[in-house]
Amino acid sequence: MDDLLADYPVRIEVPVAWGDMDAFAHVNNLVYFRWFESARIAYFDRVEALAIKEETGIGPILASTSCRFKIPLTYPDTIIAGASVQAETLGDDRFIMRYEVASRQHGRIAALGTGEIVTFDYGRGKKAPVPETLRQRILDLG
Amino acid sequence: MDDLLADYPVRIEVPVAWGDMDAFAHVNNLVYFRWFESARIAYFDRVEALAIKEETGIGPILASTSCRFKIPLTYPDTIIAGASVQAETLGDDRFIMRYEVASRQHGRIAALGTGEIVTFDYGRGKKAPVPETLRQRILDLG
Amino acid sequence: MDDLLADYPVRIEVPVAWGDMDAFAHVNNLVYFRWFESARIAYFDRVEALAIKEETGIGPILASTSCRFKIPLTYPDTIIAGASVQAETLGDDRFIMRYEVASRQHGRIAALGTGEIVTFDYGRGKKAPVPETLRQRILDLG
Amino acid sequence: MDDLLADYPVRIEVPVAWGDMDAFAHVNNLVYFRWFESARIAYFDRVEALAIKEETGIGPILASTSCRFKIPLTYPDTIIAGASVQAETLGDDRFIMRYEVASRQHGRIAALGTGEIVTFDYGRGKKAPVPETLRQRILDLG
Repeated sequence: MDDLLADYPVRIEVPVAWGDMDAFAHVNNLVYFRWFESARIAYFDRVEALAIKEETGIGPILASTSCRFKIPLTYPDTIIAGASVQAETLGDDRFIMRYEVASRQHGRIAALGTGEIVTFDYGRGKKAPVPETLRQRILDLG
Repeated sequence: MDDLLADYPVRIEVPVAWGDMDAFAHVNNLVYFRWFESARIAYFDRVEALAIKEETGIGPILASTSCRFKIPLTYPDTIIAGASVQAETLGDDRFIMRYEVASRQHGRIAALGTGEIVTFDYGRGKKAPVPETLRQRILDLG
Repeated sequence: MDDLLADYPVRIEVPVAWGDMDAFAHVNNLVYFRWFESARIAYFDRVEALAIKEETGIGPILASTSCRFKIPLTYPDTIIAGASVQAETLGDDRFIMRYEVASRQHGRIAALGTGEIVTFDYGRGKKAPVPETLRQRILDLG
Repeated sequence: MDDLLADYPVRIEVPVAWGDMDAFAHVNNLVYFRWFESARIAYFDRVEALAIKEETGIGPILASTSCRFKIPLTYPDTIIAGASVQAETLGDDRFIMRYEVASRQHGRIAALGTGEIVTFDYGRGKKAPVPETLRQRILDLG
């Protein structure tokens, strides 16, 4: 990966599939949320959120998400999707993940997004404080 | 369709597919945006946005979208998705479409969403004022 | 549901979504396999394959599948997908599910398909004979 | 790309997305057909089928397709999908594309598939002989 989204601590690279396009011959809006999801999962892998969930019973849930489309994308292209969490968004029982999608073909940002992630105690069936280990790893990773 | 989302001028009904679920055994977040899209297209059909686009060269583009998830959904279920546009969101070259998804299985709202829709002059390749006919039909429909 | 595919013991009805279309402005080939899958799951629901799997540890796995496309589909439309299993395809450890997709818009068959389903012993990690209860229910249902 | 599917003239490499998995926590059967489609489009790019369609009015249509699943796939993984056309399948107005999907994680074949592709005269609305240029390029590429 080159320097696109170089400031993001977690980045993934995904080829645009021809089938990602809809009847307007542009990449369909759903696909951006798949890229956000893949970046989010890669981020959770990096901070070992799953292992923390197994230890504490507390895991992340997507409470809300949004996307702003900057330029339409088409096949062929390859995108880079970045994910980060700013320290100031780390609340008691939630944080905001920020996403950006860059197009290699265009050499620029194609979309921006956010995900509000709530930490959930699966045993008790309700929101719970962000586990301390997870909080520290997010602060370390950015 | 019964009285779920009865206040929405445009509603669609869609069966939840088993394949809409992801590895968490809940309907994946992308699927909600497919439902929003289907409701948006149904809304555009109702105000005949396509015919207006053919007349004026100006058509709607999704500039941004968001979703707030209220309860997880599973197969089997059937959802109702509603779309509406509040008069106060009708700007010079854009408007906000509001979405709601209700679950028959749960008898309640499962998700809320928004879509910011910009009117775009395809010939000139830039934003354009909402065509008067479209504006009037949106105000009439709600 | 009217008389389309009336000879199928299991039928589902699904609205075609605008987003099911690809850049050729026809319903993408993947979508037919989603319809087959939904019909297959509906069939398994009818013969209570899941309950049988819980009792016997033996459940169905899709070993291969195929689709023949007869006419292209477009939005708006509603399809009926039917699933059936012919007695003569019931082998020792497998059977063939036959699918058909009919379009309301066209009033005719849009696609034909098959799914080879193998019964698998999840505990032992290998193929197993079709459980007797499942075999009888499939023979009864058709 | 390493030597997986090295005998295929056209190969693509695609990361498995977490969201490709369904409620059984395996990559859903639809996803394999997306990979086949992406390999098919890459093949058509290589033989410049689109340019030939523009010259002759005759382009390829997917008439039928099939997949045999060999091993279940999970995230994380990366797959290679290969596409080829054997000379002996080149008929008057059709040919068979053969697909194979290999998993990096497993280092082996995960699925095999076929696509029956018919050449269609879009102007006349009916099947047409495989254009000579296309036939020659397919024979050259394999």
